[in-house]
Amino acid sequence: MAYNLNSKIRDLKPYDPILGDFPIRLDANESFLQPTDEILTKIRDAAASVVFNRYPDPFAKELCQSFADFYGVDEASVTAGNGSDELISVILGAFVMKDEAIMTLSPDFSMYRFYGHLNEVKCFEYQKKADFSIDLDELISLTKEYDIKALVFSNPCNPTGRGLKREEVRKLVASVNALVVLDEAYMDFWDQSFIREAGNYDNLIVLRTCSKMIGMAALRLGFAVANPSITNAIRAVKSPYNVNACSQKIGSIVLKEKSWLDSGLSEIKASRKELSSMLKFLEQIYCNQIHVYDSVTNFILVRVLESRRVFEGLKKAGIVVRHMGDYIRITAGTAEENMKLIRCLKTIL
Amino acid sequence: MAYNLNSKIRDLKPYDPILGDFPIRLDANESFLQPTDEILTKIRDAAASVVFNRYPDPFAKELCQSFADFYGVDEASVTAGNGSDELISVILGAFVMKDEAIMTLSPDFSMYRFYGHLNEVKCFEYQKKADFSIDLDELISLTKEYDIKALVFSNPCNPTGRGLKREEVRKLVASVNALVVLDEAYMDFWDQSFIREAGNYDNLIVLRTCSKMIGMAALRLGFAVANPSITNAIRAVKSPYNVNACSQKIGSIVLKEKSWLDSGLSEIKASRKELSSMLKFLEQIYCNQIHVYDSVTNFILVRVLESRRVFEGLKKAGIVVRHMGDYIRITAGTAEENMKLIRCLKTIL
Repeated sequence: MAYNLNSKIRDLKPYDPILGDFPIRLDANESFLQPTDEILTKIRDAAASVVFNRYPDPFAKELCQSFADFYGVDEASVTAGNGSDELISVILGAFVMKDEAIMTLSPDFSMYRFYGHLNEVKCFEYQKKADFSIDLDELISLTKEYDIKALVFSNPCNPTGRGLKREEVRKLVASVNALVVLDEAYMDFWDQSFIREAGNYDNLIVLRTCSKMIGMAALRLGFAVANPSITNAIRAVKSPYNVNACSQKIGSIVLKEKSWLDSGLSEIKASRKELSSMLKFLEQIYCNQIHVYDSVTNFILVRVLESRRVFEGLKKAGIVVRHMGDYIRITAGTAEENMKLIRCLKTIL
Repeated sequence: MAYNLNSKIRDLKPYDPILGDFPIRLDANESFLQPTDEILTKIRDAAASVVFNRYPDPFAKELCQSFADFYGVDEASVTAGNGSDELISVILGAFVMKDEAIMTLSPDFSMYRFYGHLNEVKCFEYQKKADFSIDLDELISLTKEYDIKALVFSNPCNPTGRGLKREEVRKLVASVNALVVLDEAYMDFWDQSFIREAGNYDNLIVLRTCSKMIGMAALRLGFAVANPSITNAIRAVKSPYNVNACSQKIGSIVLKEKSWLDSGLSEIKASRKELSSMLKFLEQIYCNQIHVYDSVTNFILVRVLESRRVFEGLKKAGIVVRHMGDYIRITAGTAEENMKLIRCLKTIL
């Protein structure tokens, strides 16, 4: 028979990562820190203690408890996912009916629209102002006008590096007639988390990840924090055994390493501060070529003239950043990586 | 605001596994074999070699290569998933448009309908004959009558233990105007795999798993094998980093342990044979109480009078099997586990 792919997937292209061996990777907003030898030993032992022939705990109870302890929330409000990606996909697929509408913001993390598209929900996009700020009243009013069932956005925002303060989020969640999916992937780097208030609302899911500050992108661990009724629904719609046993065990261990995580956080924040200062110094020299945005995350967005040329120039020098239209997004790296990036960027400009 | 869960998820209950500490678990069709010490050492080293702060390979190339080598297929036809579960969910969500129809068989693995429901596709169910056989012509004709876009079933079948032969599958795939999702989770235990023919059809996806014969349920590794066009689409719709780095590394290693896997397979087949003989012996004594079905898998389906009482009786004795309506499904365990199961079952009957 002749089988044809449907219109939803016919023209989709697989994710196209930057392949090749680049000594400096500043493109994926990962942490630049490795576990200490002491922690690595614990990880090695944990991996070896996995009972490989048995399915993992469907509720990842120990992992969720470690997460809950680290963030000061109730374990009963936490659901673990195979990365936040799985949770976003599952939430948009289950909490929104087909042909209902969701709202995303622009610019923002592109995967919200991707999963919305796959789930055949209508995606409205709220365009942020030129400085990437959000007019809250306008946004709230648009969610009502378009009968939005779910509002999904990252806070702080990837890729702008800018965030909404807690009181603004509070106003938003309280004002919209929609589920709010608040992706706090980068909130470890800022102090305006809404995670401890997640239980107070019947229309809020806060997402967190171990891929950024926690430094465990390899494990694919994401978390949803919400009130009991929503948590119950997330647990019911996710795949039963969605988080593998190795990631559960290793994640539980790492989330208990509070002093290592705290010192790592300071290092990453210091790196971003330094990278930002150096970029702003370049901005003073090349003010007609680049514009550097403030950031409360572990990366910095830069508007660049001839962004493609700059991106390719950096790549040629072995430094990968993220290229997005007229912008490049640069992850804060080690002091040495930041320095090399700046030197190279200066040469290219 | 008052937020209400939609009709799709309002009444869903989270997966309810049998909790508690049972010495003998014969409920989840897992392998009863543990890796050898030598393999465990390799696993431990592999886990420690993961670069934890970096995202995993989005295409799990090394893992897919190991899988392809083990099964004698082309790596380019293989996509790895976070268990077959993720692949089933992604395929039903992407390859079928909402309100289009899929067909499942009954009895069969219940998750096909679950993911169909979540994806708001119509689910038609083909009822197998009393002996769990399938009238192929009838099935083919029904897929056309109902304009079925995807036919999803397990072969050999979980929970019946019965399978379609290769020539029957060939006829089915060639005759329907639908995508065929052929879940071969238990095909390692039988010799009628269609995996090497997957590339010959433009409407076929063969699924495999590391959770059964391979003995790595903890890792959550599933695979889709299909022609290039379908493979391209699966890779495009899955989450970019869907398989964590630990499972990728450990899976690659284990799939290279051919002699260990081969001897494990013999052990499991021997166990099923023995379990089946013993159950059939019981059947002769209690022929009005139990009926034992033939199986080409690593489990055996048994129809039992007062199945709930029998299930609870076994549980009380520390033996967990799967209870499904008038049936219990028993995984082949170690010789000792099988013996205890039989003794206990005899007492209960």
